[in-house]
Amino acid sequence: MSSSRGRGRPRSQEGVDRREAIITEARRQFSQKGFAGTSVRGIGREVGVDPSLIHHYFGDKQGLLVAVLDLPVDAPAKLAEVLTGPEDGLAERVIRTFLESWDGHRPAFAALVRSNLGESATDMPVVGFLDGVLIERVAQRLEGDLLRLRADLFASAVLGLGISRYVLQLEPLASASPAQVAALHGPALQRLVEQSAHP
Amino acid sequence: MSSSRGRGRPRSQEGVDRREAIITEARRQFSQKGFAGTSVRGIGREVGVDPSLIHHYFGDKQGLLVAVLDLPVDAPAKLAEVLTGPEDGLAERVIRTFLESWDGHRPAFAALVRSNLGESATDMPVVGFLDGVLIERVAQRLEGDLLRLRADLFASAVLGLGISRYVLQLEPLASASPAQVAALHGPALQRLVEQSAHP
Repeated sequence: MSSSRGRGRPRSQEGVDRREAIITEARRQFSQKGFAGTSVRGIGREVGVDPSLIHHYFGDKQGLLVAVLDLPVDAPAKLAEVLTGPEDGLAERVIRTFLESWDGHRPAFAALVRSNLGESATDMPVVGFLDGVLIERVAQRLEGDLLRLRADLFASAVLGLGISRYVLQLEPLASASPAQVAALHGPALQRLVEQSAHP
Repeated sequence: MSSSRGRGRPRSQEGVDRREAIITEARRQFSQKGFAGTSVRGIGREVGVDPSLIHHYFGDKQGLLVAVLDLPVDAPAKLAEVLTGPEDGLAERVIRTFLESWDGHRPAFAALVRSNLGESATDMPVVGFLDGVLIERVAQRLEGDLLRLRADLFASAVLGLGISRYVLQLEPLASASPAQVAALHGPALQRLVEQSAHP
């Protein structure tokens, strides 16, 4: 289970209803205003609850979006975990953790891709999340020049990896172990991470 | 214009009708039997034309699939062109050619992605094409170990690049020049190409 699911789950029926109301309103606001334009305070105002209750149930705005998207993997938490380690081997750790996290949820990954690559893909909450949270965190972790472009490329490769493995199911990629894929692809994507390559 | 569009285009109405009949039958067979299971001979038999006429109109089976998919870019020809050059800088050339080819056809790329990532993505002709033609050619060009897995990873990164640039339109990636993206991403993906890294 992801940490956001266990955290602050209400025990009473009233609590459950309130939690659902928060998720419904958050989904509406994320869809209309994007990730950056949505605030916990604004959601609390619409639902009529104190923002502290939203923080209690979902942690922060990212945790709320994880709940709205019904992600089986708490991607921000997983990413934060691997980004705190040393620069050496960073790309390999990201790839391995990505695959180990999603391998048990292949249909969920495929559904996420399908439901978010439609005509208005650029307005999708999940794209704002990818751009404003995941890529942003990778960019913050990098040093040197062209941080954001390098982070975009890094994320694009991981996205392509997920689509090729879980949606298109290309072989032998779809069946290779996370460790083998990470050992092979890690040193390639590591080139985007290392400052020495982009002084 | 792609070479398959100019080549062997019929001038008479009867020729146009025959060409359309071939494309219709080819679309049916590619969808039912996949790329590998479809033959020019079998299509000719169903339509009632000699296979040599199909070769005259479309070149080979790959050219026929390019016509069926109505691709604005003759991907096999472009890929063959860059693969014939030296190993040095191969990844950079592939990325640059990929972007220069598709930058003028962004909506077509997005439409191709959307119409081929559905529930039965693994049965889609375009996926068989990616797997059986494009990745196959990259694998044939590589030396060393794990050829097919390395080619899968290479293709997955290029696919992710196209989706991030043309569908999700992540910035600054979507607006960066093909040359800049290729110069940055090329050395990374080159690690998958080089034999020395995979003895």
